Amino acid sequence: MVGGGQLARMTHQAAIALGQTLRVLATAADEPAAQVTPDVVIGSHTELDDLRRVAAGADVLTFDHEHVPSELLDKLVAEGVNVAPPPQALVHAQDKLVMRRRLEALGAPVPRYVGIASLDDLDGPDGVAAFVARVGAPIVVKAVRGGYDGRGVRRARDLAHARDIAGEYLAAGVPVLLEERVELRRELSALVARSPFGQGAAWPVVETVQRDGINVLVIAPAPELSGDVASAAQNLALRLAAELGVVGVLAVELFETPGGDLLVNELAMRPHNSGHWTMDGSRTGQFEQHLRAVLDYPLGSTDAIAPVTVMANVLGAPVEPAMTVDERLHHLFARMPDARVHLYGKVERPGRKVGHANFLGTDMAELPALRERAELAAHWLSHGQWTDGWDPHG
Amino acid sequence: MVGGGQLARMTHQAAIALGQTLRVLATAADEPAAQVTPDVVIGSHTELDDLRRVAAGADVLTFDHEHVPSELLDKLVAEGVNVAPPPQALVHAQDKLVMRRRLEALGAPVPRYVGIASLDDLDGPDGVAAFVARVGAPIVVKAVRGGYDGRGVRRARDLAHARDIAGEYLAAGVPVLLEERVELRRELSALVARSPFGQGAAWPVVETVQRDGINVLVIAPAPELSGDVASAAQNLALRLAAELGVVGVLAVELFETPGGDLLVNELAMRPHNSGHWTMDGSRTGQFEQHLRAVLDYPLGSTDAIAPVTVMANVLGAPVEPAMTVDERLHHLFARMPDARVHLYGKVERPGRKVGHANFLGTDMAELPALRERAELAAHWLSHGQWTDGWDPHG
Repeated sequence: MVGGGQLARMTHQAAIALGQTLRVLATAADEPAAQVTPDVVIGSHTELDDLRRVAAGADVLTFDHEHVPSELLDKLVAEGVNVAPPPQALVHAQDKLVMRRRLEALGAPVPRYVGIASLDDLDGPDGVAAFVARVGAPIVVKAVRGGYDGRGVRRARDLAHARDIAGEYLAAGVPVLLEERVELRRELSALVARSPFGQGAAWPVVETVQRDGINVLVIAPAPELSGDVASAAQNLALRLAAELGVVGVLAVELFETPGGDLLVNELAMRPHNSGHWTMDGSRTGQFEQHLRAVLDYPLGSTDAIAPVTVMANVLGAPVEPAMTVDERLHHLFARMPDARVHLYGKVERPGRKVGHANFLGTDMAELPALRERAELAAHWLSHGQWTDGWDPHG
Repeated sequence: MVGGGQLARMTHQAAIALGQTLRVLATAADEPAAQVTPDVVIGSHTELDDLRRVAAGADVLTFDHEHVPSELLDKLVAEGVNVAPPPQALVHAQDKLVMRRRLEALGAPVPRYVGIASLDDLDGPDGVAAFVARVGAPIVVKAVRGGYDGRGVRRARDLAHARDIAGEYLAAGVPVLLEERVELRRELSALVARSPFGQGAAWPVVETVQRDGINVLVIAPAPELSGDVASAAQNLALRLAAELGVVGVLAVELFETPGGDLLVNELAMRPHNSGHWTMDGSRTGQFEQHLRAVLDYPLGSTDAIAPVTVMANVLGAPVEPAMTVDERLHHLFARMPDARVHLYGKVERPGRKVGHANFLGTDMAELPALRERAELAAHWLSHGQWTDGWDPHG
């Protein structure tokens, strides 16, 4: 697996049960996955030789992030490496403009957009002014490659602002995607897995809650989502996985409009934050499923274990807590013996994802309380301060 | 953790989620746990220096087996090592005679027994003839130390046979325990955990099914066990954990007599085969709970996730299967997408535990079908042959 982050770390846990050996390419020995697995290659995902070293003798090469340049993956494929997902699928998770165009061609619903490849096109006939005139401000400006966790995605309040942001990216050589700002009811995620054989498996569609562009909460299944819309989202994700030739887990991030329509926002071709709930809330967790898919095992049951599961991300706090994370965990366990906590072994920095916690409910009716407990747990683990009575949504 | 077997391997999975680092003392680099964790000390559990090396700098020293000599543990404790469970508790899982005597003193129900320390006592007033005269043949002859998985436990059909077996052990310097052969309805296991603070947590009492002295199946909870008897078993296990000063997981293996009485058969002070179902069937698995206990975290919820869970052990087959274990796993997953499989990375040898599979049911009424599927899965993974229509209980 290319990348030594938390996704690789949790994939290693799943590999242990399957009797498989996960080798990770990490940039340093203290990365989350490198801490916990014996088979570590230290190197860079942009160096062909390092990629060759991690792939040598492996059944399959897969990823915990999207940042490996396509041309290197093409070379590995030419050398006989089994890359999953294959580069021609992965590019749709790497390049937002390629993704948008392909989705449009497949008839998948997407926000209105325009791509701008270079500074020369910024004020051209398909430039920023023409786009703002067409869809109205505010708009969203996205770097076509390289962003994650809200990085590379910025909201522009008017034409001048949009021009500034886009110009900044373009001057740095990064093409941009301009998008209409979609009015949303909420964000959803449809998580599926697909094997090389073509078997597909879909988990229940979930609601994802963002703050400052970072996912903080996932509710599985998405509450009050009609069966028809849920099925449509699952079918869309399975169809995209098949059409794009995905092998492994595919997360299709969706906007739900106030009218109940779905638009595709982003694609990720790896285990995804919106699937962390499956570790405790589904018969088969996404990390095991990803391994099963890339190794062409038959896929596992995606049934939910509980009527509702809430996952809360633990983010590094702005101010370093007085207690160590281990002490905070003691206190959390004392108060919430049912919390399912997953820590990533990362140094805490403000806003950085350092762990998550899952809470299972026995009835969707208890969602408000469950959600409050999940928020409380995550806030405590982040800040080392309880916030009872404080409204985290306020 | 002393020992690099499957229990350490699965403890490592749990340590990853807690952000803890598990160092294992393994005798070889290819042991189940040594394959999957980077922090491995190669050495022997009977060498003080090796024990010192694995304990150096650790918060706590714990075990995946009972075979570390007490005198070495006493030395480590004297040197300031935090040993959990402490040697004075652990001896009750190491020495069956110490265990029997202590349990009797605590008023816990045990089979009638007598201990024989040396060959000189074999035919003495408390010797084998007197015991057989008192309880009647057949009896059970047990080596006081060193046995596991039915090893060191033998059934003697009459006095002469008992004398032969006991004489054999005694001649080898191993004291023996003679026990009445209890007429049983079935075997149960009461699994609990206890922290240094003294917090106790009990999982539902389970039924364990043995074949040839090896546990092959666990049913959680034990079907048709009255609430009173289940509570009595849990309370007994919690009381023993407290009285003996156990820190970590304690398994109390019980005989249920046809009249519904419970007798204590064995104690284990570590994660135990009868608790493997908790990995998928309980909110908190026994490996995480053991870590929480020995690290003095508050203990996790022991609620069952499903109304019934069946665990089946995968044993090495007498004849090596034509397919690799990986191929067998592919076929199993194709037929049973809900199977939760845990492989140990062990070379398959006849009768050796190489993995287990958990199956969750939605209703106790479906136990017969669930049990059949679990047996079928385990038989397939062992032998590479389906046995539909074959009665594994026959």
